[in-house]
Amino acid sequence: MTSPRFEERRRPHGGAPIGLGILGCGTVGGGVLRLLTNKAAEFERRVGVPLEVRRVLVRDLDKPRVPELDRAKLTTRVDDVLEDESVEIVVEVMGGEDLAGAWVERALDSRRSVVTANKAMLAKRGPQLLDLAAAKNVGLAFEAAVGGGIPVVRTLRDAFASDEVIEIAGILNGTSNYILTRMTDDGAPFAEVLAEAQSKGYAEADPSLDIDGHDAAQKLLVLAMLAFGARPPDSGMLIEGIRGLDAIDVRLAGQFGYVIKHLAFGRDRGETVELRAHPVLVKRSSVLANINGVLNAIRLEGRALGPCLLSGRGAGDMPTAVSVVADVLDAARAIVAGAPGIVNGARPLVARPLTPTTEIALRYYLRLSVADEPGVMAEIAGALGREGVSLSQIVQTEGAGGVAQIVIITHVARESAVKNALVGLEGKRFLRAPAVLLRIEEG
Amino acid sequence: MTSPRFEERRRPHGGAPIGLGILGCGTVGGGVLRLLTNKAAEFERRVGVPLEVRRVLVRDLDKPRVPELDRAKLTTRVDDVLEDESVEIVVEVMGGEDLAGAWVERALDSRRSVVTANKAMLAKRGPQLLDLAAAKNVGLAFEAAVGGGIPVVRTLRDAFASDEVIEIAGILNGTSNYILTRMTDDGAPFAEVLAEAQSKGYAEADPSLDIDGHDAAQKLLVLAMLAFGARPPDSGMLIEGIRGLDAIDVRLAGQFGYVIKHLAFGRDRGETVELRAHPVLVKRSSVLANINGVLNAIRLEGRALGPCLLSGRGAGDMPTAVSVVADVLDAARAIVAGAPGIVNGARPLVARPLTPTTEIALRYYLRLSVADEPGVMAEIAGALGREGVSLSQIVQTEGAGGVAQIVIITHVARESAVKNALVGLEGKRFLRAPAVLLRIEEG
Repeated sequence: MTSPRFEERRRPHGGAPIGLGILGCGTVGGGVLRLLTNKAAEFERRVGVPLEVRRVLVRDLDKPRVPELDRAKLTTRVDDVLEDESVEIVVEVMGGEDLAGAWVERALDSRRSVVTANKAMLAKRGPQLLDLAAAKNVGLAFEAAVGGGIPVVRTLRDAFASDEVIEIAGILNGTSNYILTRMTDDGAPFAEVLAEAQSKGYAEADPSLDIDGHDAAQKLLVLAMLAFGARPPDSGMLIEGIRGLDAIDVRLAGQFGYVIKHLAFGRDRGETVELRAHPVLVKRSSVLANINGVLNAIRLEGRALGPCLLSGRGAGDMPTAVSVVADVLDAARAIVAGAPGIVNGARPLVARPLTPTTEIALRYYLRLSVADEPGVMAEIAGALGREGVSLSQIVQTEGAGGVAQIVIITHVARESAVKNALVGLEGKRFLRAPAVLLRIEEG
Repeated sequence: MTSPRFEERRRPHGGAPIGLGILGCGTVGGGVLRLLTNKAAEFERRVGVPLEVRRVLVRDLDKPRVPELDRAKLTTRVDDVLEDESVEIVVEVMGGEDLAGAWVERALDSRRSVVTANKAMLAKRGPQLLDLAAAKNVGLAFEAAVGGGIPVVRTLRDAFASDEVIEIAGILNGTSNYILTRMTDDGAPFAEVLAEAQSKGYAEADPSLDIDGHDAAQKLLVLAMLAFGARPPDSGMLIEGIRGLDAIDVRLAGQFGYVIKHLAFGRDRGETVELRAHPVLVKRSSVLANINGVLNAIRLEGRALGPCLLSGRGAGDMPTAVSVVADVLDAARAIVAGAPGIVNGARPLVARPLTPTTEIALRYYLRLSVADEPGVMAEIAGALGREGVSLSQIVQTEGAGGVAQIVIITHVARESAVKNALVGLEGKRFLRAPAVLLRIEEG
């Protein structure tokens, strides 16, 4: 009754342990070593053979490490790791772009499978490294690179393998989300919350990667490769951060039933891919509006599957380590199965340009600080109307010192039209401050 | 530089197509066939060999099918599918428990991998079938059995492979969630919303499986196998549905900042597993409170990973078909790799009893319809106090006709103590209706 072909395909593996080489032994690397030690028996049962850490690349041999680590395995020379014959999986948790990228490339080139948590490196060299892994038939896994403890990479790779992803929308930067949550809940000003986040360790001393949107943009590039099979250009993306967001806009958005979030957004538009990362207004009752604090979330829209939301810890040593080790287990099982490349589900990446920002059409939130005098509203409405921007809601609030705040929610409009209208209003004598423009995400 | 062992483990597969046999050709089966046809080239690239549908078991040969299906492949005899030598993967999308279970067992026993969407069958026979699949080293995949288009099965199996799941909490029944959402948003009574849901096709003519909690409980049993490695007893679970939920409780819960949801809850308590499915009050600002309409969601808590939430369509032909086909792709790639059993990541299941309901301790919402007269509150508070139940909030609302509603939110208390107190109040002359008790989930 059984197909003979079926028998041919089956074969036992050798039973020898799989050697691991680890590049970097900071907090994530330490978590990885701890998991590998504490759960060694379970992992052996799962993989079929033991996983053995052979070499660990560190910067300083004398720094105290996790107690589980045998000091003799430490080295400061990368060749000790990459030229060790017994190393079959290289785990890159050192960070940085160029050095990490070169060593990952060397590992793949010598037919090691690689597990990495390095989004910056993947955003820059991901397509080439995926090609190399495919050519060498080895694994390249990177669940931890986006959304730390959220299984978005394997969801895109495996669960969506039978579908097409139309759209992704993610809260991908925990620092920004923490700051926005505090601003929303307590009405606190940006600078105060940033300082507090820095003192708590939620934000770096130099927070620009987070609060200017670049971290989210790098993760979006990695997701776009998986979701759309796209190899987008590495520059030109619309990237805006939350730096300098005014507490008044958080409050006024709330009055319209919106919460401000920093969102990384991607959409497959056929010839082009629309990728952008910036603050948006989302409806308070939406799920993304209720992803708070340092949590991350990714909403995927599949053509047949419909919406799918994943949320969890976007960073942190242990969530990241768990994702790294889950990838190690996948890579190891694939090696034991004799098919190391099976873990790479990504379709071949096709170079596609970004959708020009002039083609973006959304609803917008506009706030204008104006002199509280007759005729102002007419002039503003006229400027928008001449650009074909139609208005959904207008609220004028009486302000202090003869300055009023006019808030306008537009219907869907071309961003270029809205910006043209604002340019037309620049320099008007009634305008007391530059206009504030925020995008609205209705999903 | 490359390990010789590495070379030994690699080997090319034969290149022959993989034959599929499909049991059942209803709406999900039709969706599966459509996906397999429309994306055949992409799937072949992904798997390495073509996937070929060999036989499809149907009840009626003459019923119109998806246009893509060759009529010659249809059969009404299951032996034509299960004895076809070329069938390597059996896809069970026929539903039902006993017949489907027997045929899946036969397929596994003859060393076919199986993909099934059948939660009822898995809730009953899952442990035995997983054992059989492991013994035969074939795949048994069932992503579509729980949460239709939500990748919760592979998340538990793969992403949590390196961690331990402490707790699961899920909105697993779309019909119940639709009804509760309408009751919450519009204050509509249960019976009216149920009738509306039936007319829209969101609820069955006989809705008891959904609204009495059994569907959610079956899915919870399947999740508990994956999450906790537990083989729980197939009876004795605390199961309550939303049937007869009073609109007044939906409204009053709202006044306390809660939304009523139907939740399937599981917790690993070591010796026992706590499993229960019933309505609960959840905080309005929680993510689960904002999962609305027919959407499903599952919140997982990992020891190291922390919280992880997955949400999406819990049912529907195409979301379910996408999940089935994703499993087929996994199973096929594993067969090509010579390791069909690699798709089964489940740890060996250990029989564990359910946590006795007397050990459950939560916060509770109590509503008592009482005569509006002196001394009543003292008697109620006294009854609870004598059982050691401490009260967090009390609201008494003036009602019509001399009947008042007393709503009490307790601190965390043993359920048995709260119930004892209510038993003590039964038959009191001031009580105008049976007390309403609802559980509160603070997660």
